[in-house]
Amino acid sequence: MRKIHVIGIGAGDPDQLTLQAVKALRGTDVFFILDKGEVKADLTGLRRDMLDAHVPEGTYRVVEARDPERDRSAGGAAYSPAVGDWRSARADIYERLIAEELAEDETGAFLVWGDPSLYDSTLAILEEVLERGGVAFAYDVVPGISSVSALVARHRTGLNRVARPVQITTGRRLAEGFPEGVDDVVVMLDAHQAFLRYAGEGGEDIDIYWGAYIGTPDEILVSGPLAEAAPRIERLRAEARERKGWIMDTYLLRRRTPER
Amino acid sequence: MRKIHVIGIGAGDPDQLTLQAVKALRGTDVFFILDKGEVKADLTGLRRDMLDAHVPEGTYRVVEARDPERDRSAGGAAYSPAVGDWRSARADIYERLIAEELAEDETGAFLVWGDPSLYDSTLAILEEVLERGGVAFAYDVVPGISSVSALVARHRTGLNRVARPVQITTGRRLAEGFPEGVDDVVVMLDAHQAFLRYAGEGGEDIDIYWGAYIGTPDEILVSGPLAEAAPRIERLRAEARERKGWIMDTYLLRRRTPER
Repeated sequence: MRKIHVIGIGAGDPDQLTLQAVKALRGTDVFFILDKGEVKADLTGLRRDMLDAHVPEGTYRVVEARDPERDRSAGGAAYSPAVGDWRSARADIYERLIAEELAEDETGAFLVWGDPSLYDSTLAILEEVLERGGVAFAYDVVPGISSVSALVARHRTGLNRVARPVQITTGRRLAEGFPEGVDDVVVMLDAHQAFLRYAGEGGEDIDIYWGAYIGTPDEILVSGPLAEAAPRIERLRAEARERKGWIMDTYLLRRRTPER
Repeated sequence: MRKIHVIGIGAGDPDQLTLQAVKALRGTDVFFILDKGEVKADLTGLRRDMLDAHVPEGTYRVVEARDPERDRSAGGAAYSPAVGDWRSARADIYERLIAEELAEDETGAFLVWGDPSLYDSTLAILEEVLERGGVAFAYDVVPGISSVSALVARHRTGLNRVARPVQITTGRRLAEGFPEGVDDVVVMLDAHQAFLRYAGEGGEDIDIYWGAYIGTPDEILVSGPLAEAAPRIERLRAEARERKGWIMDTYLLRRRTPER
C-alpha cells in the first residue's frame, strides 16, 4: 500500500525541523510540492534547500504541481463554499499525483509550513481523496513548529497567561469583533490588518506582538502598546510586501488589564 | 554575561526535538533540571536520555534541584495567588541556580516539555529573576512541539476547522462552562476530567480526541463521540495513572454541528 507523510517543516527557520521530520524526509521516495505561483517561489526554494541539506541526492524524486487559484474575492458567508470548491480542485490534483506519481510500494510526502494542524488543508484534502475511493494509501502526520510557537518564542513571551485561555483565530474573524471570553488572541491569515480596528479608542489596553517571515533572514518583529505599534507595523508590512512580493505574518493581541 | 536557553523539548517523543534544540543543547554548559518528586522521575530520566543521545559526554554539567510544591488545594479565586507564591518560590531557586552554578561566561539551559509558550512558567520566572536585579543574564527561547500539536498529529486531525477559531484552555475553565464563540477547544492541565460534564445531555454533538503520554511507548489515544468515549477514557486514565503513578493528558473537544 502507498504511504504518505504529512510533514510539518516549521515556520521558516530550517533548523525548526524536528528529528522526526528529518527521518520522515529520509524515508520518502516522492516529494509533492505545490507551487502557488511566482510570489511563493521563495517558499518552494526553501523546501528544496531542506531536501538538499538532509536527504542524500538520488534517493528521491520531486514532483511539482500548480496549486489551483483560490477565489479570495468571495467574502462573508460565501467564504466557506469558495474554500470548499478550492479544496475539491486541490483534491483532484492530489489524487492524480498520488495515483500517477507514486508506485504501490512507495512513500510520498507533503511538506507543510508550520504545523499541519493549524489553518492548513492538507489533512482534509487527503481525507477527501480517500473518501472518493479512487486511490488507497495510509498516511501519518509529523507535527511541526507552528508560526504561532515561533512568534512567541522570538518575543520571549507565553501564548497564555497563568491559568487563562488563548484563542487562535483569523483576521476575518477579528475584524468582526474581539473574541469573547479571552484576553489573549493569536491572529493568522490576516491580509487586511484587522488589528488596526483596535488601535484607537477601546484598544488602549491592548499590546501586540507581531512578526513577519519569522525565523528567516527577513524576519521583522514589533511589539508594544497597539496604538503605538500599529502605524509602525503598517509601514513595515507594506515595505516588506513591496520588496519581497509576498508576506507571511502573525500576531498576538494581549489585553493588559484582564476583564476577568 | 551569562546566557540561558529555554528549550522546548517536545511532548515526550525524543525525536520531536528540533535541530535548533539539538544545537542549543550542544551549546549548553549547565543543564538545570527541576524534579517535581518521585512521580516525575520518569520525565527527568527522559531528559537525561536526550542529553546522552545528543551531547558529547564530559562537555556539560547537570544541576538538579527540587521544585517547590505547589498548593493545589487552593481553589477558585485563590488559584492565581497560590500560583504567584509558587512562582516566587521557584524564582528563588532559579536565581540561586543561575548565580551559583553558572559562571559569568557560561550558558545554562532549562528544558521544558512541549513548548515553553503554553502553560509553562519558566519565562515568567526568568523575567521575575531579572527584575529582582540580583543576577544578570541574556536568554532566548527555542520553540518546541507542544502536546497540543502532538495530540492532533497522532489523531490526524486539525486544531481548527476551515476559517474558524480554536481555543486552548484549562480543565478548571472548562468545568465552568463551554467557552463562548468557539466549537473547537483544546484542554490542558485537567486533573478532574472536566469533559465528563459534557458527556451527557447537551453534549450529544461533541466529539473528543484524547491522548495520554503522547509520543511515548505508553501512549494511549481515544477518539469518538464524547458520550461513548468518556467512560472509556475515564477507565483507561485511572488504570494508567495507577500503573505509572502519574498521567499527562490533553484533549480536543469538537462540536459536530457548528453553532455558527
